[in-house]
Amino acid sequence: MKNLVIIGGGTGSYTILRGLKAYTDQYSLTAIVSMMDSGGDTGRLRDEYGVLPPGDIRRCLIALSEETELIKKLFQYRFSKGSLKGKNFGNIFLTALSEIIGSNEQAIKETGKILKIKGKVLPVTLDKVDLCAELEDGSIVRGETNIDIPKHNPELQIKRVFLNPKAKAYPDAVEAILKADAIIIGPGDLYTSIIPNFLVAGIPKAICKSEAKKIYVCNLMTKYGETHGYSASDHLKAITHYLGRSSINYIIVNNSKPSIKALREYANEKSFPISYNVDELYSFGVKKVVEANVMNKQLLIRHNPERIAEVIIGLVPGETSALKYSGSYHHYC
Amino acid sequence: MKNLVIIGGGTGSYTILRGLKAYTDQYSLTAIVSMMDSGGDTGRLRDEYGVLPPGDIRRCLIALSEETELIKKLFQYRFSKGSLKGKNFGNIFLTALSEIIGSNEQAIKETGKILKIKGKVLPVTLDKVDLCAELEDGSIVRGETNIDIPKHNPELQIKRVFLNPKAKAYPDAVEAILKADAIIIGPGDLYTSIIPNFLVAGIPKAICKSEAKKIYVCNLMTKYGETHGYSASDHLKAITHYLGRSSINYIIVNNSKPSIKALREYANEKSFPISYNVDELYSFGVKKVVEANVMNKQLLIRHNPERIAEVIIGLVPGETSALKYSGSYHHYC
Repeated sequence: MKNLVIIGGGTGSYTILRGLKAYTDQYSLTAIVSMMDSGGDTGRLRDEYGVLPPGDIRRCLIALSEETELIKKLFQYRFSKGSLKGKNFGNIFLTALSEIIGSNEQAIKETGKILKIKGKVLPVTLDKVDLCAELEDGSIVRGETNIDIPKHNPELQIKRVFLNPKAKAYPDAVEAILKADAIIIGPGDLYTSIIPNFLVAGIPKAICKSEAKKIYVCNLMTKYGETHGYSASDHLKAITHYLGRSSINYIIVNNSKPSIKALREYANEKSFPISYNVDELYSFGVKKVVEANVMNKQLLIRHNPERIAEVIIGLVPGETSALKYSGSYHHYC
Repeated sequence: MKNLVIIGGGTGSYTILRGLKAYTDQYSLTAIVSMMDSGGDTGRLRDEYGVLPPGDIRRCLIALSEETELIKKLFQYRFSKGSLKGKNFGNIFLTALSEIIGSNEQAIKETGKILKIKGKVLPVTLDKVDLCAELEDGSIVRGETNIDIPKHNPELQIKRVFLNPKAKAYPDAVEAILKADAIIIGPGDLYTSIIPNFLVAGIPKAICKSEAKKIYVCNLMTKYGETHGYSASDHLKAITHYLGRSSINYIIVNNSKPSIKALREYANEKSFPISYNVDELYSFGVKKVVEANVMNKQLLIRHNPERIAEVIIGLVPGETSALKYSGSYHHYC
């Protein structure tokens, strides 16, 4: 079994995990999830119950779940009316279990068992911290949701992000990184889902120390207020700023085009396809730039789970099938 | 397999089912639950989401569940703070599932599967109705919770209860009653948990038609505002008023005494032990009055699940163990 570690949070991790789940006969999957989400239902539960933000953990658990479609639907279900309006069932589940057990960590593990997940889902840290961003004008934005859904001038670039207070890595996450055969970073919101993981003390060091192949799956579209005007190189630059030059061995960029209709929708949100320049990417010490059609042809521009998983698996081939041959041998005896 | 049908709702059914669950190798259990609860979290969910009142259904499902203690705890869990304060997790679960599936009936069945229940839990009706009570002064109280936690003068006796609008029986409940080898009625709040089942069109008829032994488990204590001053005969009188004379074959009355300390606590709530007169009870056409120590020796005066189950099973002996002998026969071959 090869160990794949997926670092991120949000929809990106969900997509990658859904794709990679098809390979769990040969690959063991561990998702490491950023714990800085502070918006919406998740943010409210975090404030009210002191739990770790459940939203991204829940999404990863569902992606890896072997439970029925009904149970998965239930865990995604958000009430649309009444006194539970806006509340997500899976988040309520994780919160109630945390309250009963008295441990977020155990609640996540138990939920994993209940959902019969193939793999592991680990919070990057158990500490309760706020994500902060310093903008190019020197102003500080506090709280992940305020960066993600900007109240600041979205034209201003993010200069750096940091945690307040500082956070230390969840030991299981460090261990998973050190044992990994490949570490897949992204896709996901650069400053609010991906980089927050690298702000946790112990994580960048573990990634650098790990002998795993390090693969960065670049986003498909820019995000206004966060990565406005960013190319693939700008993404890689930001990541290597936190992890060090040559820390990424492979970058996967999409080489297909969204439909005109989808592009128009996204342009309304000032979101545009991320361009890439192969030579520029190599200048960050990347071993290989992988150009591939990894996009869904839909109005919602997302990575295609099967295609992106196929490309990743291509970069991290499974064990030689010695056991299978041995099986055949017995067969011919 | 003998079919036992338990009719009630609330804590009483929960207790009986917990006790009878130990006999599910020889007995098949079906709980029929009154659907008129309108108080607290259950009442709010009923109003807001139009679901059947989930509280009593949930309690019966937990009583029959073969799931882990953690899952059972989770389904009983009530939030004590934050925006979910007062809300019960199991009720949220049933409500979310009803919303997703679009059917209360299916949601209850699916929850039964998820909780791995030994037996069945059936709502007495799928209709949404209010329980109403006419008091001895002719005034009408509307809504189960207003009868249960009286806003009226609790010294006034209840003259009769009725449903508004009328409700028709859930066909599966009728079928279970007709196929039953024994029907166990109670314990539980007489006018707010037990009798509401008999107000549903089709239920009294099915009970009368059924060839099952009909066993009434009488309450241990009176309830101020509902059965103030009631003896066991008064309970039986109320029940036979709705089901007909001789409709009950066996009545189980408790012959042990609560502790002085417990009695004092209950006296503060104007709740007193229910006395019985055996001759009086026989005058209702009962075949046998079973006097037994079926009470827990605790501050909370409740039936002891194991003891009450033992007495019930004593009245409905299982099949002769022919199969067991046949097994031995093979063994000696």
